Amino acid sequence: MPNESLTLLSDVVSESTDRRAFLARASRLGLVLPAAGALAGCSDDAEDRTRPDTSAAQQRSPSTLQNPNSRLDTAHDVRGHTTSTAEGAATGVQPIAYRRWDPTVPPPSSDRTHRLAWSATEVPLHITPDVVVAAWTFESDIPGPTVRCRVGDTVEFTLTNRGKLPHSMDFHAAQIDPKAAFRSVVPGESVSFTFQPKYAGAFKYHCGSAPVLMHIGSGMYGAIIVDPATPLPPAKEFVLVQSEYYLSPAGGGIQAFDYDKMLATMPDYVAFNGRPSQYVAEPIRVKVGDRVRMYVISAGPTHPCAFHVVGEQFDRVYLGAPPEVPIRGVQTFAVPAGGGMVFELVCDIAGEFPFVNHGFGHGQKGAIGFLVVE
Amino acid sequence: MPNESLTLLSDVVSESTDRRAFLARASRLGLVLPAAGALAGCSDDAEDRTRPDTSAAQQRSPSTLQNPNSRLDTAHDVRGHTTSTAEGAATGVQPIAYRRWDPTVPPPSSDRTHRLAWSATEVPLHITPDVVVAAWTFESDIPGPTVRCRVGDTVEFTLTNRGKLPHSMDFHAAQIDPKAAFRSVVPGESVSFTFQPKYAGAFKYHCGSAPVLMHIGSGMYGAIIVDPATPLPPAKEFVLVQSEYYLSPAGGGIQAFDYDKMLATMPDYVAFNGRPSQYVAEPIRVKVGDRVRMYVISAGPTHPCAFHVVGEQFDRVYLGAPPEVPIRGVQTFAVPAGGGMVFELVCDIAGEFPFVNHGFGHGQKGAIGFLVVE
Amino acid sequence: MPNESLTLLSDVVSESTDRRAFLARASRLGLVLPAAGALAGCSDDAEDRTRPDTSAAQQRSPSTLQNPNSRLDTAHDVRGHTTSTAEGAATGVQPIAYRRWDPTVPPPSSDRTHRLAWSATEVPLHITPDVVVAAWTFESDIPGPTVRCRVGDTVEFTLTNRGKLPHSMDFHAAQIDPKAAFRSVVPGESVSFTFQPKYAGAFKYHCGSAPVLMHIGSGMYGAIIVDPATPLPPAKEFVLVQSEYYLSPAGGGIQAFDYDKMLATMPDYVAFNGRPSQYVAEPIRVKVGDRVRMYVISAGPTHPCAFHVVGEQFDRVYLGAPPEVPIRGVQTFAVPAGGGMVFELVCDIAGEFPFVNHGFGHGQKGAIGFLVVE
Repeated sequence: MPNESLTLLSDVVSESTDRRAFLARASRLGLVLPAAGALAGCSDDAEDRTRPDTSAAQQRSPSTLQNPNSRLDTAHDVRGHTTSTAEGAATGVQPIAYRRWDPTVPPPSSDRTHRLAWSATEVPLHITPDVVVAAWTFESDIPGPTVRCRVGDTVEFTLTNRGKLPHSMDFHAAQIDPKAAFRSVVPGESVSFTFQPKYAGAFKYHCGSAPVLMHIGSGMYGAIIVDPATPLPPAKEFVLVQSEYYLSPAGGGIQAFDYDKMLATMPDYVAFNGRPSQYVAEPIRVKVGDRVRMYVISAGPTHPCAFHVVGEQFDRVYLGAPPEVPIRGVQTFAVPAGGGMVFELVCDIAGEFPFVNHGFGHGQKGAIGFLVVE
Repeated sequence: MPNESLTLLSDVVSESTDRRAFLARASRLGLVLPAAGALAGCSDDAEDRTRPDTSAAQQRSPSTLQNPNSRLDTAHDVRGHTTSTAEGAATGVQPIAYRRWDPTVPPPSSDRTHRLAWSATEVPLHITPDVVVAAWTFESDIPGPTVRCRVGDTVEFTLTNRGKLPHSMDFHAAQIDPKAAFRSVVPGESVSFTFQPKYAGAFKYHCGSAPVLMHIGSGMYGAIIVDPATPLPPAKEFVLVQSEYYLSPAGGGIQAFDYDKMLATMPDYVAFNGRPSQYVAEPIRVKVGDRVRMYVISAGPTHPCAFHVVGEQFDRVYLGAPPEVPIRGVQTFAVPAGGGMVFELVCDIAGEFPFVNHGFGHGQKGAIGFLVVE
Repeated sequence: MPNESLTLLSDVVSESTDRRAFLARASRLGLVLPAAGALAGCSDDAEDRTRPDTSAAQQRSPSTLQNPNSRLDTAHDVRGHTTSTAEGAATGVQPIAYRRWDPTVPPPSSDRTHRLAWSATEVPLHITPDVVVAAWTFESDIPGPTVRCRVGDTVEFTLTNRGKLPHSMDFHAAQIDPKAAFRSVVPGESVSFTFQPKYAGAFKYHCGSAPVLMHIGSGMYGAIIVDPATPLPPAKEFVLVQSEYYLSPAGGGIQAFDYDKMLATMPDYVAFNGRPSQYVAEPIRVKVGDRVRMYVISAGPTHPCAFHVVGEQFDRVYLGAPPEVPIRGVQTFAVPAGGGMVFELVCDIAGEFPFVNHGFGHGQKGAIGFLVVE
């Protein structure tokens, strides 16, 4: 990898959508995918499915992929599609500039139907002024856009794959057959589905294409906030999606996502809303007297977020769907990877309150920000 | 280890039950046990007990075991017993063939007394069609059998050690003096105890013999499901015991459990019910309209299970004993190592719903299956 | 490090309070602090704050510290203070002898105002009869003293820095502006603040000076127990603060705390109340019929405590502030790093009940003790 000239990850499927060919090329680029054990069971191929790899030792070798086509991503047949993907997004594409990711939750809409047409694509992205990652994204950002709706609303969603890898969409707020709705689509194609959220809360969405660890780990996640039928008390509302970055230099000043490091679970950065420590430099600001409601999601791919606000205590934390049975008077609660919880506090006094992942071995790597109460 | 001819772990105590001798031999087989620090405090020997090892560096050396006889396993005196164990189970024993482990919870019994007579033994076992582990087991399987009973029932339990290592039984559903009931028994001997479960829920059982990390890590765990006095609503009920495998090749195509890897907490496989990805190949099947109740236990030895069903949401999750205060409308909740929780969902629609450990750094290694709703 | 003559960590700032100089010297002593990425965002310096390090690779090098002066510790200006610290505490200081740390919670006071005047200092301390660590402490112990008060009481707290590093105090039971109250004070100076706990429970306190991972990881934590206005039922009450030790030999038989190991999250020891396995050698003792209330805190810095008592079940676990909505009939529940929960059980029978962190990959390293019911 260190000597590779600049090659975007998105480049690796430009010649072919054949998944095996892609993976072979991905492997050459250091986009190592696990050999087998973990994925072996996920094959579409019934013959293969009963034959995970022979030895744990083999499992550690990243050089082959025995069962690249996973049913886990609920794709019926990813292979065989022809692609209309252009090669445009590759070398020479300007990285998306660094900017603060706005944590403000969009206001509730009076519409009871929400039509979303999003793209999946790979694009270089600044996660700090100096660090550029070869991101896999929804709507060209990490995290993707925040969706807001209400219990019983209708969400009509379309994902168009404008990238060079198969992608998909899995909303944790949806009760729906994933085999159809969350299936992978190859570059140039789209998938559409409709769902009606049944429960309120802070739900994760993410790309579920195999290997899902790689697709989540590379940036394809975000939040869908679902309000209960009877609104919660008025509050300043923010979304915080914690995630981990596992990176390796890919040449040209770009960091590629490293699957082996994801499996080793020792992140380089841990961030709220995609950018390490962004809210230290540019805090979240509220007023004395405000109730603050934080929708906290751990996108993982692996670690929980032991969420804590220094100098504050949570008036209530909803472990499940609000408004039912919150726990009260909480210093810290852990949001599991793939989960979301709602944290509320009341800003009685002015001050600068750091919010952190209190599991500091990971949290110290960027899961830090400031809530400034003025 | 790589050049060892086929030797079962169970072979290592065939000549003597003296624990120090066993451990010396175990060490030669790569069955490394921690030097000291971790176990030092657990000695029966009051003199030793106040003298943990001198340096953290020493602690890392697996070559000596200063205090092999742990009070943690509640044994009064494991040393000095003569053994009646035959050498039969050793080299040349045919591994137990691969099969799907049935996750169906046994139906409730009308008996209010449950008599269980189980064996502990070491035996080679297929956890995939190709991977054989030198398993330590209850009733020759990983996990052991699922027990089902009701609050207030009487469970009369006998464990006979038909293996070659000291073993014991610790039911998390029992309130009982562990020093007597959960004590280690040497090969050829038995221990019996009786208990009456006080709370409903999904409880882990496991071998608690020292070092408990090794005995859990090598396969000695399972589930005891306790119904409340008033039954929960009818449902299709399944048990899912998540566990981790830490393996090293032991020669002869067998994988031995690796204590040092257990301490390093980076598993080779993570599985539901002992076999990585088994329910991808052979899913769990229910009907549209069914309520599904999943008794989810994390046997560990170390990691939680961030349990999630793709395309579904949990109607209720019981963090403590059902039927009290479930949380509702949950996407993902983490079951801690050594814990168990009850997850319910209603199958409104047909589809193929993957259930996963959403902490994918670990979950990707086999903690994946399908719930097929037809 | 291995060849260093005995040098206390506290020695490293004896010549200057300039933080950069300190850190350079700390680095030479192996007191490695992270290069950048993790802390970069925390700078007081607006210019620096927007420029985290360029590459993840750089982040791994412990040899430089780009932004040593963190706003996270809420210090307005740590640099520039002159220090009145004597060099006395350094080489040749006798380590504090090994003793059992009394887990008994102090009885409730009839005073409604609590005046605490504590010192922060660095001092060598026996955490076992044979292991001495170069501890950073409150009141010369790990953990610091246990505070007990009641909801609505007034706590008047003063911290005087009698050590050689900047330190601070962060009470999780306080709702207060951390920028002022929890600010770092340099050696010889003091900080005072007053707060009124609003919620009952088991709360952590800790030093929040940057890097907070290092200050927590080096021993600066403890418990503040807050009673509800209406007392909980009478019980034998104990506090258990779980924490991790990450050590490297520092010469002279002393173990120094190792920041790189903290970031790698693989502890050498895990302990309740600072001393690995201390309550195996010298158990906690209660009587048959007692209700036992355990205030369990995970000080981390990183790992949760999957708290479990072998042979017992928790009658109730308060995830938030007692007396609201406990969960009942619990085998194991995980207390997150930086969190605290209240666990209750009733001792119906005599016996020896091990209490453990059931995440045994870490728990086996010393998070073990005995509750003896007589």
